[in-house]
Amino acid sequence: MTNNTTSYALITDFYQLTMAQGFWKLKKHNQLAVFHLYFRKIPFQNGYIIFCGLKNFLEIVENYHFSLEDLDYLASLKTNNKNKVFEPQFLSFLKNFVFRCRIDSVLEGDIVFAKEPVMKISGTLLECQLLETILLNTINFQSLIATKASRIYNVAKGKPILEFGLRRAQGKDGALAASRASYIGGCFATSNVLAGKHYGITVIGTHSHSWVVSFEDEKEAFRKYILQTSEDFSFLIDTYSILQGLENAIIVANEQKDAKKRFFAVRIDSGDIAYFSKIIRKKLDQAGFQHTKIIASNDLDEHIIDSLYQQNAKIDIWAVGTKLVTAKDDPAMHGVYKLSAIQKEKKWNYRLKISEDIEKTSDPGILQVARFYEKNNFLGDVVFNEQEKEIWNKKNYIEMVNPNNPIQRKKFSKKQDFKLLLQTVMKQGKTCYHFSDIHTVRKNTIEKLQNLDESIKRLINPHIYPVGLEKNLFELKQKMILTK
Amino acid sequence: MTNNTTSYALITDFYQLTMAQGFWKLKKHNQLAVFHLYFRKIPFQNGYIIFCGLKNFLEIVENYHFSLEDLDYLASLKTNNKNKVFEPQFLSFLKNFVFRCRIDSVLEGDIVFAKEPVMKISGTLLECQLLETILLNTINFQSLIATKASRIYNVAKGKPILEFGLRRAQGKDGALAASRASYIGGCFATSNVLAGKHYGITVIGTHSHSWVVSFEDEKEAFRKYILQTSEDFSFLIDTYSILQGLENAIIVANEQKDAKKRFFAVRIDSGDIAYFSKIIRKKLDQAGFQHTKIIASNDLDEHIIDSLYQQNAKIDIWAVGTKLVTAKDDPAMHGVYKLSAIQKEKKWNYRLKISEDIEKTSDPGILQVARFYEKNNFLGDVVFNEQEKEIWNKKNYIEMVNPNNPIQRKKFSKKQDFKLLLQTVMKQGKTCYHFSDIHTVRKNTIEKLQNLDESIKRLINPHIYPVGLEKNLFELKQKMILTK
Repeated sequence: MTNNTTSYALITDFYQLTMAQGFWKLKKHNQLAVFHLYFRKIPFQNGYIIFCGLKNFLEIVENYHFSLEDLDYLASLKTNNKNKVFEPQFLSFLKNFVFRCRIDSVLEGDIVFAKEPVMKISGTLLECQLLETILLNTINFQSLIATKASRIYNVAKGKPILEFGLRRAQGKDGALAASRASYIGGCFATSNVLAGKHYGITVIGTHSHSWVVSFEDEKEAFRKYILQTSEDFSFLIDTYSILQGLENAIIVANEQKDAKKRFFAVRIDSGDIAYFSKIIRKKLDQAGFQHTKIIASNDLDEHIIDSLYQQNAKIDIWAVGTKLVTAKDDPAMHGVYKLSAIQKEKKWNYRLKISEDIEKTSDPGILQVARFYEKNNFLGDVVFNEQEKEIWNKKNYIEMVNPNNPIQRKKFSKKQDFKLLLQTVMKQGKTCYHFSDIHTVRKNTIEKLQNLDESIKRLINPHIYPVGLEKNLFELKQKMILTK
Repeated sequence: MTNNTTSYALITDFYQLTMAQGFWKLKKHNQLAVFHLYFRKIPFQNGYIIFCGLKNFLEIVENYHFSLEDLDYLASLKTNNKNKVFEPQFLSFLKNFVFRCRIDSVLEGDIVFAKEPVMKISGTLLECQLLETILLNTINFQSLIATKASRIYNVAKGKPILEFGLRRAQGKDGALAASRASYIGGCFATSNVLAGKHYGITVIGTHSHSWVVSFEDEKEAFRKYILQTSEDFSFLIDTYSILQGLENAIIVANEQKDAKKRFFAVRIDSGDIAYFSKIIRKKLDQAGFQHTKIIASNDLDEHIIDSLYQQNAKIDIWAVGTKLVTAKDDPAMHGVYKLSAIQKEKKWNYRLKISEDIEKTSDPGILQVARFYEKNNFLGDVVFNEQEKEIWNKKNYIEMVNPNNPIQRKKFSKKQDFKLLLQTVMKQGKTCYHFSDIHTVRKNTIEKLQNLDESIKRLINPHIYPVGLEKNLFELKQKMILTK
C-alpha cells in the first residue's frame, strides 16, 4: 500500500463498497469467484468491436489502494440514522488490501464481438466486486472510441486521420483516453499535447481562425505565419471566404522562393467540402502547388467521409473531432460484468443472472473462447466452459449453438485452425504479459482490419459474424434457467 | 510557478502552443485581446442551457503552469525536418509564465441561451489563446450534462433523481465532471464515490445482481443482506424474475420484526417499468409495506420518465445513468471561443470571423448581455458592445435585432428591470468572486428552473427565447462583413 500514487479506489459505485463490507461482515469476502466482461451489443450497428483500454486498467489494478484521505472520507460517511456507514475494522481491512486476482483477457486492438467474454477476472468475491466499476469505465469507453476510429479508418482509403477532439471531449481523462483509443483504432496523430506526452502519439496542428483575425488582414496573417517558422506550414483558408483565402495563400506563398516549397497544406473547416476541395485542388495545381495538400475538418465522421469520396472530393488528410471522441451517434458501450462461478467447499458452482429480456441473461461457467480460422478468415467464435475438458477429447468436432436462436447451429472440425482468445495477463495482482508498445498495437490493429472480411466492415448492415455457445455450455445454461 | 500541483498546461491543442510561439517570435504575444465563449446552438432541441464548469475552470487557470516534465516533453518535439519545434528561449518564457487575465462570466447554474456571450476573457493574445482548449473542454461538457440533468429534473415531478452513470462515463474525469454537473442540474445524489469525496455530493446505492447471484438462492441473499446491516435497506428484485423477487423480498422482510420497518425500497433494473411498478406497488401495499419505495433504473432519460408518468407508473426514485452522463441523444456541446477585439496603439480594434454559414459568423466588440425581466419572467437577452456608452443614454429604449433574421426586432424600455449577465470573476489571474457552495448552486438552479416559463421548458419544440444584438452592434457587424 503506497499513498504517493494516484488513488483510483474511490472511482467506484458506492454499492461496491457497501457490498464489500457486507461480504466482509458475513465472512464471505474471500470466497473465490469468476466474473466475465462482455459487450451486450456492438455500437454504431458495426460488425465488430476493437477491444481497448486493457493496459490502463491493469495499471489501475497494480496501483490500486485506498489513500489515507480516501479512508478518512469513507469514515466520515453517515447513514440516514446518523450512524457510520463503514465500520472502523472494515476500513482497516481496506487500508491493507492488495489485489491478488488473475486476469485473462483478449488484447488491445483485438477484433471481438458481442456476447462473448473478452475478460475474465478470477479472485476473491471482494476483489472481483471492487474492480467492476473502474473496469467498465475504462474498457467501455476506450473500446467504443477505438471501434469508432476503426470505422473511419476503414473508409479513409489509407489517407491519414488526425484526431482533433479535445475541446469537445468529456473532461481531461475523457480526452486523453479518447486520443489513445483513436490512435489504436487507426488514427495517425492527435492535437492533444498531453496524449503526446503520455503515450508518444504524434501531435499535430495547423493554426486557428484567431491567428488570422488577430492581424489587420488575411495576407498579413499568412505572411507573418511564414515569417515565424522555417518549417513546412499549413494555412487555414476559411476565416473570411474560402476562395479569397486560397488566393491570398497562393499570393503569399509565391512572395518568397523558399515558402513555395514549404507550403505543405491548406485546411478548410467550413463550407461544402466536396465542392470547394475540387476547386482548391485545381487552383493549387494551376498555381504550381501540386505538392500542397488539402486538409478537411468540420464535424466529419465515417458516413460523411465515405460520401465525400463518392463525390470525388480532393482531400488528402482528414481531421476528425467531435463525432469521434464523443462517439456521437452511439455514445455508450454496453459492456457488462457478470458473476458466473463461485467456489464452495473447493468446488466451482456455476451461476447466472436471468432476465425478462433473453439477451440480458448471462452465461454460467469459467469461460474461454475458441476462434476458428481458415487462413486469415475468422469462421466463428465458440464460447465454452474451460472446466469441461471432454469437449476437446470426445468428438472430432465442436458444436456451437446460437443462444438467441437455438436451431441455428454450426460445427467446427477440430482439425480447423483455432486460437483461444483469452490470455493470462495478470497473476497475483501483477501484470505478467509483455505488452507491445502502442505504435505496434496500432500497426497490428490496422493489419487485422485489413485482413477482416469486407462484409464485416460494411458501414451499414454488416454481416453478422457467428458467435455462440458450445453445445454443452448451451445445455447447462438452458437447464439452469429452467430450474431457477 | 509551482511544480507540485497537477499541470493542466498540456491539456491543449498542439496549435495553441505553436501559435503561442509564433506570437512570441513576432513580439505580438503581449497585445491585449478579448475573446468570448458562446454556444452555437442548444443541445437536445432544448429551450435553454444550464451553464456549468466555471469553478473548475478558474481553478485550472489559477494553477496553470508548465511543469519541468511538460517542458522537457515540449523540448523533445521535432519537426518533419528533425529540427526542434520549440525554441529554448520560448520554453524559458513558458516556464515563468503566469496568467494575469481578467474573466467575466455568467455563473454556474445560470440559465443561458445560444448566440450570446457567456464568458469574456480579457488578457494578452498569448494567454487568451493558451486557455482556449481547456476552457472549451471544461465548459462544453459540464454545461451539456447540467442541461441534460435539468431536462430530467423538469419531468421528474419533484421525485429524487440518482446519477448512476460512472460505468458508462468517459474516463475518471469524465465521470467526475458528469456527477458534478448532474448535481448542479438537479440530481439528488450520485453513485460515484469520488464525486462524493471531491464535491460533498451525497453518495448512494443499493446492491447489485452479483450480490444475489453469489448466494445459493435469492431468499438467502436477501436474508444475509438484512443481517449485515442495521440500517434501512433496498432490494434489487429482478435478478431472476421480478415478481418472484418481490415475493421473496416480502417474505424475508416479514421474517424479522425490525426488518419490516427498515425495508426502504425495491429496485427494478429491467422489464416493463410501467406494467411492473403498478403490480409491485399493489403487492407491497397489500403486504403492509406502504412505506417501501420503488426505485427504477435501466437506460432512463427524460422522454422515458415523462412517458412513464403518463402511464401512471408507480416510481418514487429515478436512477439515471448512461443516457445522462453521455448525453446520449446529443453528446457534444457546440461552445466556441472567438477573438472579437484586439488593442493597437492603445485603441480597441473590433474583429470577427466570417463564414459561408451565417450562424458561424462571430460578433465583434467587447460584449455584455442585458437580460430584461418582468417579475421572474425573462423577456429577452440583448448583446451589446460595452464600449458604446451612449446606447444607455440617448434613447429611452434599447432595440434588439435578430441577426439571422434582421426584420425581427424588439424594443425594451430602459425602465424595465434588467440585469447584466457577465460578472467579473477573475482579475489578474486570481479568482475575485466569492462562489456559493455546490449545494447552494444546485438549490438556486432548481429555483431558476421552477421560475422559468413552462413553454421554454417543454421537452419538444420549446418556445424560442429572444436573444439578439443591440441595433448599433448589429449595424457594426453588418458593416464589417460587407467591407471585409
